[in-house]
Amino acid sequence: MPLHQKPTGRLISFEGSEGSGKSTQITLLAARLQKEGREVITTREPGGTEIGEQIRNIIVHNSKGDEMCAETELLLFTAARAQLVREVIAPALLAGKYVLSDRFLDSSTVYQGIARNLAPDPVNQINRFAVGNVMPDVTVVIDVPTEISLQRLKQRVTDLPDRMERENVDFYKKVRDGYLLLAKNMPDRVILVDGTHTTAAIAQTIWEHVKIRLG
Amino acid sequence: MPLHQKPTGRLISFEGSEGSGKSTQITLLAARLQKEGREVITTREPGGTEIGEQIRNIIVHNSKGDEMCAETELLLFTAARAQLVREVIAPALLAGKYVLSDRFLDSSTVYQGIARNLAPDPVNQINRFAVGNVMPDVTVVIDVPTEISLQRLKQRVTDLPDRMERENVDFYKKVRDGYLLLAKNMPDRVILVDGTHTTAAIAQTIWEHVKIRLG
Repeated sequence: MPLHQKPTGRLISFEGSEGSGKSTQITLLAARLQKEGREVITTREPGGTEIGEQIRNIIVHNSKGDEMCAETELLLFTAARAQLVREVIAPALLAGKYVLSDRFLDSSTVYQGIARNLAPDPVNQINRFAVGNVMPDVTVVIDVPTEISLQRLKQRVTDLPDRMERENVDFYKKVRDGYLLLAKNMPDRVILVDGTHTTAAIAQTIWEHVKIRLG
Repeated sequence: MPLHQKPTGRLISFEGSEGSGKSTQITLLAARLQKEGREVITTREPGGTEIGEQIRNIIVHNSKGDEMCAETELLLFTAARAQLVREVIAPALLAGKYVLSDRFLDSSTVYQGIARNLAPDPVNQINRFAVGNVMPDVTVVIDVPTEISLQRLKQRVTDLPDRMERENVDFYKKVRDGYLLLAKNMPDRVILVDGTHTTAAIAQTIWEHVKIRLG
């Protein structure tokens, strides 16, 4: 899995709070790209590989959430990411495919860095180590107010025991603010989309941005 | 689990190739320290916590060893270490206990860094992030020639399927050389012990060094 070759594919990551509608929009964008004749693969974090799914199980189903320290959480997320990049994303990019990823390194910057107060320097260093030179060409941040995000979450009953979705309101506010800051600081890479619009309207906005940015 | 308080306990890590006799010597040193009235706990890496043992399962029992990339391996080892430090080691040190650890951060420096050729800077940065300010007071490196180490391994039939123990001879030579280099570079912290001597002689050597260094 050489990470040094210049890939011909494109990596588009989707970011945002839980309940922001990322997976719906990934499905819609994948369909649209395929209609245009692109080969598309979709993947998710943490997970996306056999090893990554095992790591996901530790993170998500950790029965007593507050036992896992923030440092361990960051290292587990980046371990899954390192594997995903080398086993799935880099080979797909080298083969000229479009890769749509449900979360990528910005999730660690925002969740473990900003929301869990880990210092930015080690978070960035560890993120960079995990992804090598594989950075997203475009990152779509879907923004919804925290109240709406939490309301949508409560409707997903089966997901509620998951560790990440039992966090408190303050935590989710920090996550939202973190993503807004990211969009502000990295306008060349990050597209900020209003997630309170209709699904079709959001899909259209994303499509127009992606067309412009990736040609 | 405050990592900023000055602990009154002592952390002694044991390092060396598989088959070097670490666990035997840990048991003997623990008994000797207890005889002297010290409170002792022993722990192992990866593992030592519920989360760490789950991580250990991923690393050790990964059925197709070569699928896990070196970056993932490093991040998983350091994830387990971060949890072990905060959940077990730091509280024990604060309570004045002696902690004897079967492997600690030097294992990542040597195995993932030197033997798997990951660059030293990120390995050191990630190691430091994982352990915070909890560094070993003394590190005992038990050195045995690679041939002896491999011979001893082959006798542990039940352990043979483990990923780490299926590596090739060159890998173990690099591990040995890595530990010898570590002992040379860090004489203040690292005690290098000849693991070809008798168990009792090695235990006595370790005991004398520990007495001198920890008073």
